[in-house]
Amino acid sequence: MTTRVLVWNENVHETTQAEIRAIYPDGIHGAIAEGLTELLGDDVEVRTATLAEPEHGLSEEALAGTDVLLWWGHMAHDQVDDEVVARVQRHVLGGMGLLVLHSAHFSKIFIRLMGTTCSLAWRNDAERELVWTTSPGHPIAAGIEQPLVVEHQEMYGEHFDIPNPDEVVFISSFEGGEVFRSGVTFTRGRGRIFYFSPGDQEYPVYFHPQVRRVLANGVRWAAPADGERRLPEVTNPARRDWLVQPV
Amino acid sequence: MTTRVLVWNENVHETTQAEIRAIYPDGIHGAIAEGLTELLGDDVEVRTATLAEPEHGLSEEALAGTDVLLWWGHMAHDQVDDEVVARVQRHVLGGMGLLVLHSAHFSKIFIRLMGTTCSLAWRNDAERELVWTTSPGHPIAAGIEQPLVVEHQEMYGEHFDIPNPDEVVFISSFEGGEVFRSGVTFTRGRGRIFYFSPGDQEYPVYFHPQVRRVLANGVRWAAPADGERRLPEVTNPARRDWLVQPV
Amino acid sequence: MTTRVLVWNENVHETTQAEIRAIYPDGIHGAIAEGLTELLGDDVEVRTATLAEPEHGLSEEALAGTDVLLWWGHMAHDQVDDEVVARVQRHVLGGMGLLVLHSAHFSKIFIRLMGTTCSLAWRNDAERELVWTTSPGHPIAAGIEQPLVVEHQEMYGEHFDIPNPDEVVFISSFEGGEVFRSGVTFTRGRGRIFYFSPGDQEYPVYFHPQVRRVLANGVRWAAPADGERRLPEVTNPARRDWLVQPV
Amino acid sequence: MTTRVLVWNENVHETTQAEIRAIYPDGIHGAIAEGLTELLGDDVEVRTATLAEPEHGLSEEALAGTDVLLWWGHMAHDQVDDEVVARVQRHVLGGMGLLVLHSAHFSKIFIRLMGTTCSLAWRNDAERELVWTTSPGHPIAAGIEQPLVVEHQEMYGEHFDIPNPDEVVFISSFEGGEVFRSGVTFTRGRGRIFYFSPGDQEYPVYFHPQVRRVLANGVRWAAPADGERRLPEVTNPARRDWLVQPV
Repeated sequence: MTTRVLVWNENVHETTQAEIRAIYPDGIHGAIAEGLTELLGDDVEVRTATLAEPEHGLSEEALAGTDVLLWWGHMAHDQVDDEVVARVQRHVLGGMGLLVLHSAHFSKIFIRLMGTTCSLAWRNDAERELVWTTSPGHPIAAGIEQPLVVEHQEMYGEHFDIPNPDEVVFISSFEGGEVFRSGVTFTRGRGRIFYFSPGDQEYPVYFHPQVRRVLANGVRWAAPADGERRLPEVTNPARRDWLVQPV
Repeated sequence: MTTRVLVWNENVHETTQAEIRAIYPDGIHGAIAEGLTELLGDDVEVRTATLAEPEHGLSEEALAGTDVLLWWGHMAHDQVDDEVVARVQRHVLGGMGLLVLHSAHFSKIFIRLMGTTCSLAWRNDAERELVWTTSPGHPIAAGIEQPLVVEHQEMYGEHFDIPNPDEVVFISSFEGGEVFRSGVTFTRGRGRIFYFSPGDQEYPVYFHPQVRRVLANGVRWAAPADGERRLPEVTNPARRDWLVQPV
Repeated sequence: MTTRVLVWNENVHETTQAEIRAIYPDGIHGAIAEGLTELLGDDVEVRTATLAEPEHGLSEEALAGTDVLLWWGHMAHDQVDDEVVARVQRHVLGGMGLLVLHSAHFSKIFIRLMGTTCSLAWRNDAERELVWTTSPGHPIAAGIEQPLVVEHQEMYGEHFDIPNPDEVVFISSFEGGEVFRSGVTFTRGRGRIFYFSPGDQEYPVYFHPQVRRVLANGVRWAAPADGERRLPEVTNPARRDWLVQPV
Repeated sequence: MTTRVLVWNENVHETTQAEIRAIYPDGIHGAIAEGLTELLGDDVEVRTATLAEPEHGLSEEALAGTDVLLWWGHMAHDQVDDEVVARVQRHVLGGMGLLVLHSAHFSKIFIRLMGTTCSLAWRNDAERELVWTTSPGHPIAAGIEQPLVVEHQEMYGEHFDIPNPDEVVFISSFEGGEVFRSGVTFTRGRGRIFYFSPGDQEYPVYFHPQVRRVLANGVRWAAPADGERRLPEVTNPARRDWLVQPV
């Protein structure tokens, strides 16, 4: 069964800063989409969408046709329409997988799904990041080196104010000595969420073969097991005789 | 160290329905406060607040002076001011303990902290509820019978749409055969949250000695270990030489 | 990629009690194997093994060729050789999936992997069991009715003395009012473990289409994401310059 | 209520190596006991026991009189009697708190309670360890600096083969770039377990004021909420009419 993937990117750095466009000529979304297609081939059908599109490319129809959504945002979190955020949340709770990337820890959708500030420590000093697998049997860690080395990356450090994750798959360290839970999973409603921090507009992290492998694994993992999209809802059932089949 | 407890109740049923006032003449908040005082004595200082008060009795000052907040609401969730909800959330994330009771699963504050719909199945048919301890060493279960029997109670059933709890302390069954995770804990920011479902305006559940014991245990458990109230926040630290003391 | 499944059953009831053989003429292992083959078809290659075989059919070679092992035992737990148990544990920690069924909560292998007593309450009174899904987006719950109804089954009740599971997928209630965490997952080493309680020698539970669906889902879920079988081990690495590729 | 603490140490390095005795003249147990007494005062009654004592100082009576046991071992894990290990396990499952320290990750008791290999990466190179709090509201983190700095310490690194912890309170980084889940909690039976890695015979870590604070917090956290010591056990209850009080 083909997994329908939608890579969303605010696409502001790339369209307003030449030095970022030089790193990501097809946008961060383009680089991510390329990596997923390369690794997952016919198992996926990959589309992209950006902030500037009508409804940010996240119409009801677009989301209804998406099994897994990837989200990258940084400087334009505030420009994302609240109605669209509520719609994305409904789809996640109804079963759509969600991968939240790097600075999207501060996206409206992630904060809403977590219920916390999602704050952290940061420093942009081109530090080496080591991504250590702490859950080696997890499907998202399949084929990942111990450690995955990112040559230059923005530092993200603890305390990362998120709820206790279901699973901590990766923990990173940085040259300056900080640590960060860089790969964590959550369940919200019927949806599965994976947050992965390596990836920044100033460094070509989304071309890193191992980072691409993590995202491909994440897409597989977050894809809904059944095709159903159904928001959990209140019910008011009558008492039943359980041994008689319901009508 | 005295734990400062604030019991919040919308107090609408009791002031508008004579049959509910007959069950809870001092309000649900009054019954809960009485139970906490009875069981925890000088270890706590118990106050109450209701929806009708200015700022719902939840001013910045009131919350700053609260270690653990208990929240009961049902028919007036919508009347709680969004600004007050945001304020309560900040205090929870900053370290204030929160006990969410029964129909407050649908309170604005709980939904905001969970990020899910918090929906469930329900049926008001005066069913017997059995509350089974699944985590017998947990401080909240200390002194609780196996099972705790509630003679008549509204049925709440799965699926209860909440994030995976940190711990499932109690699971209930009802005469009709439904089950419910009736006592669950969460951490959000620096705050500890305990949701406990037994307790309804139509039944005298908050006079039940064992229910009172659970709430008293919950207050002890949720009280912050240190006195500090501090919202997690973004920092941008410089690289440090860790073996030299910071100034 | 074909998942290699091994269904292990002590096969003592079926060979010594005519009334049990009447229910499971091909043994419990036969019924389970039939269900998996029916539902998973060419995605799996299903073998069976029993206590009476040399090394209980669990030689090093047999386990090396197994992706997911299912384990059913009841009256002969003590007859399982400790060396074989240690071998199974090594394979689970190395990445083999394990499904632990019903009375195998008291198997040597499960107790060893859990570190607890794995005790519970029980009563064999042919009670109706309702299996409620508490994690509807979990792959193991795909296609399962809410609730799954088992007409007659032995009661298993809380407190079930297991470590906090990674996820609680199912919670059951019984006619007598007891509840039980009947479907729970664990990670141990690189291996994924699913315990599922419905299934008893006295009732034809393993012919129940929905129970078969749960087991098939469980096999898919527990199958290792990569083919590697590798026991976690101590290492003593030298300090490295991370930006230089290791030899 | 006074918490009865027993600090257990194999006490082999200190009695056989002069350079270790120079660091810990009263033994590692003596340094730990001193720290607990200093910080917890009359709230605790602290005793010590060592491998060389009859039954290693861990008789049934000694354990029955212990609320929280701390365990340090390294080179003599094998010399701990299996019967004593089984006894300690029973007491933990029955409600006794357990703090497992540093190289005791490889103690028989910890491996038995975890069910995994408990293996890790290590390197003894006097590296600086930074202990970061990832759960700032947790009672064990109360009063702990961000980060806690240990000047020289043996490196312990991931992958640390333990079950998913209930909570990850601390994550460490080392000069060489490795990370480690250095403070983690577990529940087993009715007992609460805290593993904390900083602390080695070659470095005076147990004199570090902040390390002492962590251990004192850990003792408070692990102490059983009620006085009861009761191993979870199998029961075979008859069906009951729940609204009639049991005899």
